[in-house]
Amino acid sequence: MSFYALQADRTAAMLAATPGWRRLLALRPDLDDDTAAAILGEAARIAEGVVAPLNARADRVGCRIEAGRVRTPEGYADAYRQLGEGGWLAMDAPEAHGGQGLPVTLQAACQPLFERACIAFMMAAGSAHAAVQLLHEVADADTAAEWIPRLATGEWAATICISEPDAGSDVGRIRTRAARAGDGWTVTGEKIWISFGDHDMTPRIGHCLLARTGDAPGTRGLSLFLVPNTRVDGSANAITVQRIEEKLGLHGSPTCALAFEGAEAVLLGAEGRGLPQLFAMIEMMRLSTACQGLGVASGACDTARAYAAERRQGGDPAAPAVPILAHADVRRQILDMEARTEVLRLAILELATAMDLARCEPDPAVAADHAAFAAWMLPLAKNFGGETGFDVASRAIQVLGGAGYTREWPVEQALRDTRIVSIYEGTTGMQALDFLTRRLWRDEGRGLALFLARAHAEIAAAQPQQAEAATALADLLGRFERLSSEMMALRNDPRAGELASDGYLRAAWCALTGWMALRLAAPSLPTPLAGLSAWRLAGLAAEFEAHAARCRLPAALADAPFAAG
Amino acid sequence: MSFYALQADRTAAMLAATPGWRRLLALRPDLDDDTAAAILGEAARIAEGVVAPLNARADRVGCRIEAGRVRTPEGYADAYRQLGEGGWLAMDAPEAHGGQGLPVTLQAACQPLFERACIAFMMAAGSAHAAVQLLHEVADADTAAEWIPRLATGEWAATICISEPDAGSDVGRIRTRAARAGDGWTVTGEKIWISFGDHDMTPRIGHCLLARTGDAPGTRGLSLFLVPNTRVDGSANAITVQRIEEKLGLHGSPTCALAFEGAEAVLLGAEGRGLPQLFAMIEMMRLSTACQGLGVASGACDTARAYAAERRQGGDPAAPAVPILAHADVRRQILDMEARTEVLRLAILELATAMDLARCEPDPAVAADHAAFAAWMLPLAKNFGGETGFDVASRAIQVLGGAGYTREWPVEQALRDTRIVSIYEGTTGMQALDFLTRRLWRDEGRGLALFLARAHAEIAAAQPQQAEAATALADLLGRFERLSSEMMALRNDPRAGELASDGYLRAAWCALTGWMALRLAAPSLPTPLAGLSAWRLAGLAAEFEAHAARCRLPAALADAPFAAG
Repeated sequence: MSFYALQADRTAAMLAATPGWRRLLALRPDLDDDTAAAILGEAARIAEGVVAPLNARADRVGCRIEAGRVRTPEGYADAYRQLGEGGWLAMDAPEAHGGQGLPVTLQAACQPLFERACIAFMMAAGSAHAAVQLLHEVADADTAAEWIPRLATGEWAATICISEPDAGSDVGRIRTRAARAGDGWTVTGEKIWISFGDHDMTPRIGHCLLARTGDAPGTRGLSLFLVPNTRVDGSANAITVQRIEEKLGLHGSPTCALAFEGAEAVLLGAEGRGLPQLFAMIEMMRLSTACQGLGVASGACDTARAYAAERRQGGDPAAPAVPILAHADVRRQILDMEARTEVLRLAILELATAMDLARCEPDPAVAADHAAFAAWMLPLAKNFGGETGFDVASRAIQVLGGAGYTREWPVEQALRDTRIVSIYEGTTGMQALDFLTRRLWRDEGRGLALFLARAHAEIAAAQPQQAEAATALADLLGRFERLSSEMMALRNDPRAGELASDGYLRAAWCALTGWMALRLAAPSLPTPLAGLSAWRLAGLAAEFEAHAARCRLPAALADAPFAAG
Repeated sequence: MSFYALQADRTAAMLAATPGWRRLLALRPDLDDDTAAAILGEAARIAEGVVAPLNARADRVGCRIEAGRVRTPEGYADAYRQLGEGGWLAMDAPEAHGGQGLPVTLQAACQPLFERACIAFMMAAGSAHAAVQLLHEVADADTAAEWIPRLATGEWAATICISEPDAGSDVGRIRTRAARAGDGWTVTGEKIWISFGDHDMTPRIGHCLLARTGDAPGTRGLSLFLVPNTRVDGSANAITVQRIEEKLGLHGSPTCALAFEGAEAVLLGAEGRGLPQLFAMIEMMRLSTACQGLGVASGACDTARAYAAERRQGGDPAAPAVPILAHADVRRQILDMEARTEVLRLAILELATAMDLARCEPDPAVAADHAAFAAWMLPLAKNFGGETGFDVASRAIQVLGGAGYTREWPVEQALRDTRIVSIYEGTTGMQALDFLTRRLWRDEGRGLALFLARAHAEIAAAQPQQAEAATALADLLGRFERLSSEMMALRNDPRAGELASDGYLRAAWCALTGWMALRLAAPSLPTPLAGLSAWRLAGLAAEFEAHAARCRLPAALADAPFAAG
């Protein structure tokens, strides 16, 4: 059985053990566990057969500009077409718009298989997926009817254009301006960090773009536009590809700087409401980055384990060397990698089911609870999805030793590709601020309370079978609750809060990890996962306290002088 | 003042605050603090002026094979000549052999300046330095007289050839064979991972090589040889460059596979004693890897801080954006990076002074104590030097955000270059085994006892000024002592020990970090370092407990099944 198929099976088993999924099935009689497993199996087949063959070439050959247009590596266009035809680009879009009407959960369950295969190529799919959602929510009927089905089938493509040279995390400093021109609009400005900002896979690319339509400062003057790179007749709109960034990794994803010079544009939604309108899509993109980290981590685990089963070193010098997988320290390394990876997998499924239930629970109060809980989990999944992908890739290099440092093995590419995941779609610092100032302070701890209630309920249910772990986890949740009270008390001291925010985010991830690690030992899951549970729980409370201690540092330390300069 | 000069000044101040250095000055009346500061200042000038300009080109252009020989990037040969002429290649070699007769401590103090400038290029210097030491200790008088002065001045170069395709960490599986031929020897076999295994910087390269001379299994049949790539008349010895490895980083250091096909060789030292003879040199190379990590970390800190002082984002949207260095979370990130870097700097100086005092304390018992303490510290400095370099480089990327992920800034190269440091010269796993099975079990805890005595004495002395930190640290040392007793009790269960060894190594680094972080706050050091002390101490005991908890996992968990396969 291939590693992809094994990953699909493991995901299906975990999905079945996720309470939110059980509830979702009750609300969606058209779905069941077998259907989910079949979809996962097919995703594994396509990921391995169609997408994975692109990965090494994507990295080695990369993308280049020829005659002002971006050329992608051989095989991209065909693979993109196959993803579109198979319905993989917009699984969760409504059927009326060319999607499959599946829950976000199935999208999030399948996506790591594709990301594992080639994260760089899948950046194009991610943009299409985000644009479908955005257009579905805010585009007028004609625009939606024109674009969404074509994006869903891969006939056309899309990008999301937010950043500018002076507007990265600080979106409110966007300078690109939109002006009325006849019935429509034109857009002028420079956008950077545009993934697949241009390419040769589809005849048309729609840029979803934030531009300034008023003089209100900050984000209030921003509106959302669709700016196609060509008109329907194929003639070019006024957009120039300025360069492709030279990056550490993701060479197979052309990160473009684009100049818009009076380009024709269609307003999406209401003027001045650009940023709030983007939010739902940004949430989906943050879930998506977690899937990227998970996909790469999954592949790195399997590469490390397979290498360790083959590579022979050590043992009695008078006898043939033993596979390094026989050495306790090598086993520890791999079990540790797997434990981190499988905890992340459960966390993503938990989050995705909450996002689905927020949309389809009939009782609005219950739906709102799911929404608050999902908003609370999202910065955690976003940040630690990315960090876990990078960390597990780095650990895989360590297992392979010198070999892992060479291009003979895919783990060095995994390391390079994943380093950006905790930067784009909101850096760690932005996630930490969101988690503290919006989820805790502004939402008055609603998401936190829901987390504690859900985790405590599951712990109580596990108490009879897993008394020791359950008790330890209840204690950890208590510590987290106390720390959260301390963080709440910083509400009137935003600078102290900002200083503590990173530690608080990490402490929260420990608490969430504990819950998911307990779930790994659920009787319905395959036995090996229970062993991983113990690996992940060991030292977790101490890890939590290390982060908590940093939350408690005096705020004055932020103004300490630096060692040099 | 340049960042290099600031780093030199900071190093000089820390050196002056290192007790072992004070003792060394008492034993070496020819040296004083001013001389050390002057040498550091000159090293900074050469590193910045001569070596640093090579770094970007080393990475971009790399090395290639032309007509069977390795070509290095433009400027390498001239820079190597300047290092040799300036006496930087063998500062600590005896003057009789063309060295400067300086303590290892000054070598270790200066080296991070050069590594910061271009770690890849400095791999050549590292090999020459190691070979000088090796030949000084084991070569016959004629060989020593022929080679050492020329290596010290950079006229000739050298390599260290240990690994083979089936002999990495498991040195005892070396297959390369040496055979007697007339008065001398010939060597036949394949060696891999040879840094600067060939190049065009010097007319002659001497390969220091382990080969099998007897039928004793494992390491007992290994002897040490010098295998020059050319004879004195310039004719070629039977050595072929098979390839340069394609690596994640260190592109400016040609990592060669070499085939020896009956190559003429000179025996170094006693037959069958190859590996023990290598040990002193391996110790020096492990210290050297710690300096590599420190050098790159130092540069990454300064790049991040300088970027953060320039890059403007955030603040009141109606006003110009503020430098991101004004944000508490960005300050935290940089202070944290600096704290980790400066603790490592103090640790390296502590270790290097112990290595010097082991050689020059007149009382053999005192000298032996220093040797035991240095042997105890070495795996810690080796491993966490490398890990800190990589970790701080990664944190620097985070501060720079998207920019840090591009080749416009040097931090992505720093990340790539440093990933190998905790792999070569003994992986983390090898260091952890050395630390547990040799330093604790075999040496009966001698190095540990010396560490505890020294650290406790310094803590007691700091108690009046730093009561809180001193008390917390005394507590941490107590925890470490208890954990060490538990680890000692595993002596008869090597597999349980191996499983715990990584956690124990990390716990020990926490204990050592605590001691060095306390020293950062020494009144004689510049004030900013005291602030870093608080940053590093926060949560350290909890971090220790997280590692300790993993040491205490049941050994049976090592045999747990994997998630897949």
